[in-house]
Parts: sequence; structure tokens; C-alpha cells
Amino acid sequence: MPSDLKQPTVLAIDTSGPVAGCAVLKDGKIVHLTVMNHGLTHSETIMPAVDAALEGAGTGCGDVDVFAAVAGPGSFTGVRIGVCAAKGLAHAVGKPCAAIHALEALAMNFYGFEGLCCPILDARRGQVYCAAFDMAGGMPRRALPDAALPLEDFLANLPGDRRLVFVGDGVPVHAGAVSEALGDRALIAPPNLRDLHADAACLLAAARPETWVPAAALRPIYLRAPQAVRERERKNTRGKT
Amino acid sequence: MPSDLKQPTVLAIDTSGPVAGCAVLKDGKIVHLTVMNHGLTHSETIMPAVDAALEGAGTGCGDVDVFAAVAGPGSFTGVRIGVCAAKGLAHAVGKPCAAIHALEALAMNFYGFEGLCCPILDARRGQVYCAAFDMAGGMPRRALPDAALPLEDFLANLPGDRRLVFVGDGVPVHAGAVSEALGDRALIAPPNLRDLHADAACLLAAARPETWVPAAALRPIYLRAPQAVRERERKNTRGKT
Repeated sequence: MPSDLKQPTVLAIDTSGPVAGCAVLKDGKIVHLTVMNHGLTHSETIMPAVDAALEGAGTGCGDVDVFAAVAGPGSFTGVRIGVCAAKGLAHAVGKPCAAIHALEALAMNFYGFEGLCCPILDARRGQVYCAAFDMAGGMPRRALPDAALPLEDFLANLPGDRRLVFVGDGVPVHAGAVSEALGDRALIAPPNLRDLHADAACLLAAARPETWVPAAALRPIYLRAPQAVRERERKNTRGKT
Repeated sequence: MPSDLKQPTVLAIDTSGPVAGCAVLKDGKIVHLTVMNHGLTHSETIMPAVDAALEGAGTGCGDVDVFAAVAGPGSFTGVRIGVCAAKGLAHAVGKPCAAIHALEALAMNFYGFEGLCCPILDARRGQVYCAAFDMAGGMPRRALPDAALPLEDFLANLPGDRRLVFVGDGVPVHAGAVSEALGDRALIAPPNLRDLHADAACLLAAARPETWVPAAALRPIYLRAPQAVRERERKNTRGKT
């Protein structure tokens, strides 16, 4: 039975940050969404949540047209858990995968906002993973490229004549500094629109079937090399000096 | 141990429409959200979902400061299920309840939108339950009162000089008519921001402790008399003519 690609059934998985979640899109509707900010181990919580989502949606793995994973930027371990879960499920039933960009999925929380949506993720080491998207037309249009920067460098890159809204797990850490630097021009997302929700990942995957790849080709999106690689490189550099 | 009312722990339950859901707010964060549009019986699905939410959040009923229910407008049976569930839990542990307005909770999906958010719910009989909220300042400020109206009457009431976004379960039914009547000025909420999410109900309850009432005093919000009452009144009127 051929899939209707105009109304694909999508399962999306996100374990890329502190929040873990999954969602099912079917017949153009979000039929299930789970968002968990429990402080528990994603590798233990995500598969029972996926199971409950598919069961609730009355959908078997074989009915899913594409398995979407939020592929980064984010926690290195978290990203790998979500990517591997989607890859495994897709491989088992011979269906494609879609890599969803975490910052773009966050911007979907402010569909139609007249201004720029600025997702900031806590990247540790005094940096944020950041980008900016123009949301006035509805779906996200990129305004600034992805970067891993100190917050103040990111704020300095933002245009001075646009309304801005800040979302993502960097908000609880940096909301004070953002408001101090930008005043009324910066809106801070309230808790219900602050975190990545997997239903946004469903919609991005459904809107772009041209980005679907075979399960084996699904890859994480990294903005920085993992800590182990950075340390090895630093040691190698030291060794040469 | 007195509760910290500035950061209350809130459990919110919504079974007022086609979507059923629940959420937990704790320490200013949404720690759990479930949204189910399964077409299943709310009275069967909501309590297991509440149980999973509290367990995931690591929260017992006794730790909850207020039990919020989306109290309408909406499906008569659905509203009563949610109100009774919240009332029962609150009564058991001696905590207050909060009645959340369905249309206002829907508007929370468009926090910061420069214009009016217009929730429309399918009220059958050729009507929508509708209202309009100014979202530019963040939290909803009421712009039009609640009403049960034919869609075209509601559209005629809307100001001609504002950007508008339409949300709610009336959207799949009426999006075409809205776009035809209002053109580019009307944005239609995408599926991830279309339905009521219980996390918005958590935030509204937390923001207004002055509206909390004892469990026994929680009441549904009706815009129309139930069908049985309307039919009885019609029969009585006929009898008198």
C-alpha cells in the first residue's frame, strides 16, 4: 500500500536536551505528544514513551512513513540516543529517517511571531548553541547561522530593529542577561513554549520529504567536536609545542 | 510545610474537547505534558495519563498545590469528566482547584503574537465557541467576550486592522472559510499549536492564585445550556403557544 506523502504518518523522537519526548502525526493531526522533563535517563524513558505513543495513536511501526529524530545540536549522548532509537525502528520496518534540527524545531513554537525567534541551548563552557529564524511568514526562515558562542557575542550579532523571542533550555540560565541587554525588545518564552516539543519535529519532517534518508544514513548534527575529541586534540597540540 | 505560591506545583487536566491531556508544573518548569488526540474515551484515558504524569514528575498528589481543570467552554460530557477528576483528587488531599477557561488556555499557544489570537471550537449546530485575546504583551488580554456564534458572525465582529491567528478544534473545519473571508491577515495555527495543551492551563492557574477555590466549589464554564435542557425548554415553550 503506497504511503500518501502529502499526509505522511510521522513518529518523532527527541532526547537531544534536558527534555525527552515523542510525538505522532497522522492524517495532518498531532495524535499524541509526550514531553518529559523528569531528570531521568533518556535511554530508559524514551522507548516506553514511544510505545505508549504508538499504542495510543493506534499505529504500528509498520504504518509509520518516516521516523524523525532531533539530531542536534544538543547533548552529545542525548543526540545519539534519539538518533539510534529512530534508526533502529526505521531499519526494522524498512522505512526512512529524517534528521531534525533542534534549533529550528524550537523556533516552531513561535510560528507567526512578527520578528526573530532566537533559540539558545546551554552548551556549557560559557557558550550557547544559537541561531535566529524569521517566523513572520509562519514556518522558520533562517536569519542567522548556527553557532556555539558566548551569549554576549550572540546578542551582539542580532539586528537592532526586530522584535526577538528567546526559547530553549538556555532561557532559565540566561533570561536575566538577555533582558538586561535588550530590554523590552526581547520576549522570554513562557514555560509552555520554552522547550522543544517533538510535535514540531513531526511537522518539519512531513514538510520536507526530500530530506528523508535511509536509516543507515541518519547522522547527528554537531556544532562542536565532543569533549573527548577536543581533549585529545588539545593534548596533541601541546605535545607539538 | 507551607507551599511556595510563587512557584506552586500544579497538576492540570483537560478533557474539554477532542484532545485529552494533562501536565505538571513544578519549580517554574513544565516537567510533564501528555496530549492525546486518540479518539478514545476520555474517562478511560485521563486517569492513567495523570498517574504517569505524577509518577514521571516524581510528585505525589499531596505535593500538588492546586489541581487545575479546563472547565469549558467545550463538550458538556468532556468538561464534566475533567472537572470531576480534578475535584476528586483535590478533595482527597485537601487542596484547592482552579477553573481554567478553554479559550484563554488556547490563546497561550500564541504568547507574544502581535495581534489577536482567535480560538474557535466546534460547537455543532452551525456555531463556534469563540473569543479573541490580545497577545502582544505576552499573557492573554481579552479583546472580545466569549460567544457561541455562527462563524461568519464572529468574523464580522473582529477588528479590520489587526493581524489574527486562529486556533482550536474549529480550525480543521473552518480554516478554508476563515482564509477566504480574511485573506493574508488571518494566520491558521499549524498542528503543533492548534490544540489545547494542559501546560498552558498549569501556567494560568499558577499566575492567578486568587482564583483558586475549594474543590467543592469548582464549576464548569458553559456558554450554552446542555442539549437536554434546551430540548426541555423548547417543549415547554411549544406547550404554552
